[in-house]
Amino acid sequence: MQEKKPQKKKKELKVKFSPFDVSIDVPYGTTLLDCIQNANLPLKTTCGGKGTCGDCVVQVVSGKFRTKSSAALPGPLASQGYVLACQTEVTDDIAVQLPQFREIEIKSIVDSKFFIEKREEISGVHELNAAIKKIDLQLSSPSLEDNYSDLKRIEQQLHKKLPIKKLSCEYSVLKKLAHAVREDKGKISVVLFFTDSDAAIIDVFPQSEKKKIFGIACDIGTTTVALHLVNLQNGKIEATTSSLNQQITCGEDIISRINYAKKPGRLGKLHELIILTINKLIEKAAKSARISPEDIYFGSFSGNTTMLHLFLNLDPQYIRLEPYVPTFNQVSTILNRDVGIKMNPEGRIICSPAVGSYVGGDITAGLLITPILKDSKKTSLFIDAGTNGELVIGKREWLVTCACSAGPAFEGSGIKCGMPASEGAIEAVEIRKDGALKYTVINGSKPKGVCGSGLVDLLAELFVNGYIDRHGKFKMEKAGEKIVDSEEGKGFLIAEGKNSFWGKDLVITEIDIKNLIRTKGAVYSACMVLLKNVGLGFDKIDSVYIAGGFGQHLNIDNAIRIGLLPDLDRDKFHYIGNSSLLGSYLILLADKNKDMVNETAEKMTYIELNTEPGYMNEYTGALFLPHTDIKLFPSVMQLLKL
Amino acid sequence: MQEKKPQKKKKELKVKFSPFDVSIDVPYGTTLLDCIQNANLPLKTTCGGKGTCGDCVVQVVSGKFRTKSSAALPGPLASQGYVLACQTEVTDDIAVQLPQFREIEIKSIVDSKFFIEKREEISGVHELNAAIKKIDLQLSSPSLEDNYSDLKRIEQQLHKKLPIKKLSCEYSVLKKLAHAVREDKGKISVVLFFTDSDAAIIDVFPQSEKKKIFGIACDIGTTTVALHLVNLQNGKIEATTSSLNQQITCGEDIISRINYAKKPGRLGKLHELIILTINKLIEKAAKSARISPEDIYFGSFSGNTTMLHLFLNLDPQYIRLEPYVPTFNQVSTILNRDVGIKMNPEGRIICSPAVGSYVGGDITAGLLITPILKDSKKTSLFIDAGTNGELVIGKREWLVTCACSAGPAFEGSGIKCGMPASEGAIEAVEIRKDGALKYTVINGSKPKGVCGSGLVDLLAELFVNGYIDRHGKFKMEKAGEKIVDSEEGKGFLIAEGKNSFWGKDLVITEIDIKNLIRTKGAVYSACMVLLKNVGLGFDKIDSVYIAGGFGQHLNIDNAIRIGLLPDLDRDKFHYIGNSSLLGSYLILLADKNKDMVNETAEKMTYIELNTEPGYMNEYTGALFLPHTDIKLFPSVMQLLKL
Repeated sequence: MQEKKPQKKKKELKVKFSPFDVSIDVPYGTTLLDCIQNANLPLKTTCGGKGTCGDCVVQVVSGKFRTKSSAALPGPLASQGYVLACQTEVTDDIAVQLPQFREIEIKSIVDSKFFIEKREEISGVHELNAAIKKIDLQLSSPSLEDNYSDLKRIEQQLHKKLPIKKLSCEYSVLKKLAHAVREDKGKISVVLFFTDSDAAIIDVFPQSEKKKIFGIACDIGTTTVALHLVNLQNGKIEATTSSLNQQITCGEDIISRINYAKKPGRLGKLHELIILTINKLIEKAAKSARISPEDIYFGSFSGNTTMLHLFLNLDPQYIRLEPYVPTFNQVSTILNRDVGIKMNPEGRIICSPAVGSYVGGDITAGLLITPILKDSKKTSLFIDAGTNGELVIGKREWLVTCACSAGPAFEGSGIKCGMPASEGAIEAVEIRKDGALKYTVINGSKPKGVCGSGLVDLLAELFVNGYIDRHGKFKMEKAGEKIVDSEEGKGFLIAEGKNSFWGKDLVITEIDIKNLIRTKGAVYSACMVLLKNVGLGFDKIDSVYIAGGFGQHLNIDNAIRIGLLPDLDRDKFHYIGNSSLLGSYLILLADKNKDMVNETAEKMTYIELNTEPGYMNEYTGALFLPHTDIKLFPSVMQLLKL
Repeated sequence: MQEKKPQKKKKELKVKFSPFDVSIDVPYGTTLLDCIQNANLPLKTTCGGKGTCGDCVVQVVSGKFRTKSSAALPGPLASQGYVLACQTEVTDDIAVQLPQFREIEIKSIVDSKFFIEKREEISGVHELNAAIKKIDLQLSSPSLEDNYSDLKRIEQQLHKKLPIKKLSCEYSVLKKLAHAVREDKGKISVVLFFTDSDAAIIDVFPQSEKKKIFGIACDIGTTTVALHLVNLQNGKIEATTSSLNQQITCGEDIISRINYAKKPGRLGKLHELIILTINKLIEKAAKSARISPEDIYFGSFSGNTTMLHLFLNLDPQYIRLEPYVPTFNQVSTILNRDVGIKMNPEGRIICSPAVGSYVGGDITAGLLITPILKDSKKTSLFIDAGTNGELVIGKREWLVTCACSAGPAFEGSGIKCGMPASEGAIEAVEIRKDGALKYTVINGSKPKGVCGSGLVDLLAELFVNGYIDRHGKFKMEKAGEKIVDSEEGKGFLIAEGKNSFWGKDLVITEIDIKNLIRTKGAVYSACMVLLKNVGLGFDKIDSVYIAGGFGQHLNIDNAIRIGLLPDLDRDKFHYIGNSSLLGSYLILLADKNKDMVNETAEKMTYIELNTEPGYMNEYTGALFLPHTDIKLFPSVMQLLKL
């Protein structure tokens, strides 16, 4: 006799989005665009769902769906599972990739020309003496005459080997001790966390397990998060991963995240999103290096003050309220089990110190990659043009700093054709004498968009070749034939649809150009205010170090031509990329670097631009290409033959 | 229209037992005795459930039941809800109290004559300088010119007030900081945990909350657990609570608990039971002192090595395997959130140090109540006769110690009429010249049983009055009319049923007497071996300090008459009760005491009786009243006119 089981009618279908790790349940037949909007994911569409703009391209990775073909989606893409979200209905549990938000590739700058050449000049030491160490011990066999406790025998051996003053032992280690010391005949390894001359035993295992220990250095950017997985026994970077900060679904910049966090439960959500972002990067790095995340015992984190507050689940509200008082600038070591990073629960977390609410640990860590903290002779200027722009000027004896709201334009956000410096990004642009636009694409494929360094080039080339005026407006007499209509107004054609990855024209609009000008203006004017404040002219600056997410190569000439950087001798400039990440790496490697940044953060003078009288004037003057006062840019004057 | 809901047929009834916090589900009509046996609770019955022995008296506190009347249960008890478990069927969800295991009352010995008189002589200091302190701060209001972080402003104030070297801050405190500093205009209190000259901020709250901070001192005995709740701001004991160690359901002595812990999951159960026991005591103490357990920040725990291993959830197996190596003897501070005591999660836990597997932190803590650690002139003997017997001999310059398996007889366990020193216990016994037995009952009610001090008296009186011979056998020619038959053989009648609380004869049997003789013999022979080991005779002992759970008053004369204590001048003896609890209290109060016991534990010489050749001979010789070699007890010889 057979029983007929009633078929359960499945009403809701699951749609899973990567890279955001967001899932929603929707009824059969819902369009993907509605799913994305319901899930509050950052995918914009210009045509409003008519299937004409092609903005809502997504890739269906698994599951069945029903889609209409569209002229806005080229055939080759369709064959790889790309669809227009507005033209596609969900008929199954499906997994969708939002391609604009794909992983960002950040390269380690440890192997960069800059780092190799300047290694001796930078402030941070590049040597291995981490606060976390693995020590091998051989315990004697206990007997009736020598029956010290397991812990005591370890303590005795450690005191013999190392000059430790106060030695403590984590509770979780006590719980493993009896087994560990008996497993391999007293041959054990202990993992120690050192604080000055004190040490805590944070793990123990039989030597037969042949474990290595690892650490992570991580830069928590407002837009992107990047991470090095480091072998703590030789200092080698075993893997580098990076991705969008998933908090971006809750706001693009610091202020919008702080505002988002106001309502109950939302601070927790922001915290979870950054932990999720970091944990995915660790997972990926651990997989590629073939290690277990349990073997990661140390994390060195940098980020702006707000990011580090959210990372530690601390309310950031007071950061944006006068007098801008954060909960902490410097904090002692934190236990990972309080934070929940995917590493050993007994692992230790350290955060680079902030100077104030708007000059954070990313800046202090970044300074390690410059000579500024140890050089008494030269005066240096450090510019980090991230979502926020931060500047530092000074030398070993004195340091002055300020911050400005630059916006993430040069990181590829908020610009129609912008994207992070990853596969498919145009990273360099040149307009030839014949008017042809020449570009270089990362990994050489068809272009998907333009990253920071490409945008700097594009803006400079449009300007010096007379396609735009000093306000950033198109000069139609010159640019006319290159200008196309787009949903967001007139746009300069960078690549035609047939030549672009998404099959649609790649353009830069006047709105985008305004945005870029505002960003470069914010940075430059902050620079001016800082200099005036310390009573120095640009002529007194010996070196300029530029950090930020522009991409691999920043064309300094072009950055000067648009007025982002001051018009100084080109050999004074050093583009150092993600110095926050590299600074975290140096802090991870050697406690000496941590002490150095902690002392630095204490002694820096912070200028609050919000209340600085001259700033708005300076900013307004900088909203031109390269500047209202073009005399500040003699090389540009010369180029333009003014 | 009314819907008829189908009445759910309740099959199982819930039976809840206190003081064990055990619940089981049973079918309607199950006898309470079956319930108790199914739940593995320690209630013995002699008649096998016939309703004649009256051993299985329990009290039903709530719920309905069906019971048969029995001659073994007097009317007055029946009217208070007492029933014979074997004659009672469960017909409802009910709550049952096992009266033999009711709360034990331990009195603080801080107010005792001994402690008041000897305060200056004892080794521990009785002053308040705890490692946990509450400090009030007034933070300045932040401004644009003075916008240090919340944490920094606290750190600055603390450094101004106190000579702190390294100052750290718990993560949980960071999370509260922004709110706490703004709630009462910068008036905050911080709770600090000091380690030498370093300090950690473990809590913060606005002063307007008017919080006080507390600590607990706790003695974890194999049989009983006792606790003082202490105001850490003035050192005052606010409440004292004690109860049976609930682990007793898993075995009465250390070895049986270690054996119990062998199977998977059972270590965890033992751990949970002791945490449960302690948490109930804290709850009760906090309620009586009207404080919140959250305000308890510090716990000082003493106990034998096995108890402290189980307390910390550490496998005790190697304690009973040669060469008897525990996981730890001394351990650094432990975070309460790792252990889960009902106090502030950031609270700190310290454990008194052990000397070895069988001389634990209860002994080292107890030594603080004697002059032995600071007196260079006098040689003292310290005897702790608990479930295990431990002895220490020496002076400031040297200390030798050993342990013996005494058994819990003098704590009232394993003796038919035995009970802890709580309400209804006979605590003193005298046989008058006319043969009448006179006794004193704690709180003056009808006697329920006999506690340790009463058992010592009883044994001594039976012996010196000729009711028992030197083997502990009844001398029928003398005792005849006082001897009654009991389920466990011949017994000496202490109180007739009509005069006893349970309505049944209170007797001591030859089996009980053997048990008591074995216990006193174990202690005395350990004493002999220890003395021989250091090459001293009893004449070189200047003072004897006796600790243990005998009750409030131990009759030294009688303890000597039965051969439990050596026959020395009576004024050399000091009965100090629960010295482990008082030692923990002193350790809680002042770090100096902790340092003293830690150093003591390091320098003590431990003699392993198990492998000591002379011990078995000594033990056999001590299984007589007072001893085979009666010449060791001249005062007893004189009394017996031998």
